[in-house]
Amino acid sequence: MSELKFSDLVESVAPADKTALRVTVLGGGSFGTAMANTAVRNGCNTMIWIRDEAAAADINTSHINKRYLPDFQLEAGLRATSDLEEAVCNRDIIFVAIPSHSFRSVLEQIKPFITSQAVVSLTKGIEAKTFSFMSDIIREVLPEVPYGVLSGPNLAKEIVAGQPAGTVIASQSEMVRYAVQQALHSALFRVFASDDVNGVELGGALKNIYAVAMGMAAAYGVGENTKSMILTRALAEMSRFAVELGANPLTFLGLSGVGDLFATCSSPLSRNYQVGYALGSGKSLEQATQELGQTAEGINTIVQVKARSEELNVYMPITSALYNVIFEGAPPLSIALSLMKNGHRSDVEFVLPHQQA
Amino acid sequence: MSELKFSDLVESVAPADKTALRVTVLGGGSFGTAMANTAVRNGCNTMIWIRDEAAAADINTSHINKRYLPDFQLEAGLRATSDLEEAVCNRDIIFVAIPSHSFRSVLEQIKPFITSQAVVSLTKGIEAKTFSFMSDIIREVLPEVPYGVLSGPNLAKEIVAGQPAGTVIASQSEMVRYAVQQALHSALFRVFASDDVNGVELGGALKNIYAVAMGMAAAYGVGENTKSMILTRALAEMSRFAVELGANPLTFLGLSGVGDLFATCSSPLSRNYQVGYALGSGKSLEQATQELGQTAEGINTIVQVKARSEELNVYMPITSALYNVIFEGAPPLSIALSLMKNGHRSDVEFVLPHQQA
Repeated sequence: MSELKFSDLVESVAPADKTALRVTVLGGGSFGTAMANTAVRNGCNTMIWIRDEAAAADINTSHINKRYLPDFQLEAGLRATSDLEEAVCNRDIIFVAIPSHSFRSVLEQIKPFITSQAVVSLTKGIEAKTFSFMSDIIREVLPEVPYGVLSGPNLAKEIVAGQPAGTVIASQSEMVRYAVQQALHSALFRVFASDDVNGVELGGALKNIYAVAMGMAAAYGVGENTKSMILTRALAEMSRFAVELGANPLTFLGLSGVGDLFATCSSPLSRNYQVGYALGSGKSLEQATQELGQTAEGINTIVQVKARSEELNVYMPITSALYNVIFEGAPPLSIALSLMKNGHRSDVEFVLPHQQA
Repeated sequence: MSELKFSDLVESVAPADKTALRVTVLGGGSFGTAMANTAVRNGCNTMIWIRDEAAAADINTSHINKRYLPDFQLEAGLRATSDLEEAVCNRDIIFVAIPSHSFRSVLEQIKPFITSQAVVSLTKGIEAKTFSFMSDIIREVLPEVPYGVLSGPNLAKEIVAGQPAGTVIASQSEMVRYAVQQALHSALFRVFASDDVNGVELGGALKNIYAVAMGMAAAYGVGENTKSMILTRALAEMSRFAVELGANPLTFLGLSGVGDLFATCSSPLSRNYQVGYALGSGKSLEQATQELGQTAEGINTIVQVKARSEELNVYMPITSALYNVIFEGAPPLSIALSLMKNGHRSDVEFVLPHQQA
């Protein structure tokens, strides 16, 4: 990607235009690091909190995140710390880029240091036992803070390579939306605003289900017609489920909806796609997981969303069919049939009234 | 694709359940032929009109459309004719699968034979000189007929190969929607209904613009982040333009919108994608067209939509940037900049109010 010259067309931001926001990213994974680096470039006073003291010290001396972005030189102005109090006190925005299974525990640890900081989730996913989204956890643990969620088709390696990308900041608070745009929006990384927290967050959490389905279909060598139908039936399911939880269906037309779904379903290297491909080739979940060396997030999401959709009485034929294939021995071709089932006569929800065809 | 076994899971339609609709397809291209064959399988009395008498006779004896679907055995019940009066009189549905530049003239030829038939366009595109969509032409030439348009991600070769696919029939007339579903809906070809004629038709007509943009981006080796942004910014432009013409933005969440766009943008073999790739590699339109051996539909669409969007005062930065690259010598990277431009702060139209960012 070294021959790319997008940055040639972009003027650097003049110092006078830079904001002086104080920004912290909690978590030193690839996306958190990419966002912290973007904030430094935007003129923010930026800190990244990494639990491991040696890793934080190494970033401060080498300016490289050797574990997650080993090929990329970080801005010299990015300061890493393993001291949570230092990282959180007296800051404007706390971005939380912590995996969903540790998200709640980190918020509980920072609670004593929170005064008026905004808290913005960079994490996609669902907390396994509670079916909580990251915004739910923020509201539960830190009920007073202004908060938001950031989500979109954002592969960290492409962002640090300077390829044009966009994302969505969703918040009920205009102040949070504006501050996050100030901190992260730049000529090559566009930050759009939305007030639909549920819709934006659900896009990022649910897409993994459909990456499994797309991988399974690929094992059958399906063409563009079928892939397009998976994509649009996935959008119909996602928006149906999301509207039940209070989201705006139009959000799924944007980067955090169809944008992220498109990127995920077009990435044959993703774990979700690969587990789907293995299942579609006739392997069991145990075999597929063993080959991958780890569990794919999408599998857990299928279990959780299937249960929740039944509680809410939301029709999700692809998710149900995937569950039946993975856990109840149904043939993988059931996915194809789930696409063809009657049940809703309009291909877009909320356009024509639902009727049995 | 011969190892596919989707049809193994599908029960054939019992004769008693079959409809007795009388269906004609005008035009013997690959998609018209695929739809005619589908109608025969659905139990319709089906005729296909092909202007060339020898070609029609050949289909009646060989049951193969040698020019457009040479590898596929058609149903024996499909009858071809080159007699337009025979093809149109005393039928229930006339599907028109005639290229946009001849669409009007064929409608004018069948006008004397139209009594109460429904007329359904299978053609995607815009009439060059008038900026008319096919539904506009139907309304102008045959103002009394019930009509509809069919559009979706429907590669004919995949349909005849029996891969699962879906499409959308859009009509103001419930009777037309129902009849087309009866004629074409089957276990492997799902026909959804919509009442948004403008929205469905615009999806099929505008997508070619963005296939050019996607090809141009591919010449720069962009990754998934940028491709996803092109896709979603394209949807924003398309829906903005379409709403101005009276369409429902939610239509773009469906098969005829993002579904067709996804299929088109994922097909590196399409002419539109290839002309974009050539332009992105620094070639002129003349060079690119010469290499392809013919003009790509998307180029004409760019010219037409640019002019129309300016008349309507609709903001379409990708279309404008493509125009500037192709006709005014702007560098192809302008496309990337068009994605990053301010102008609308929400990434989905109609969610947050438009404001300058």
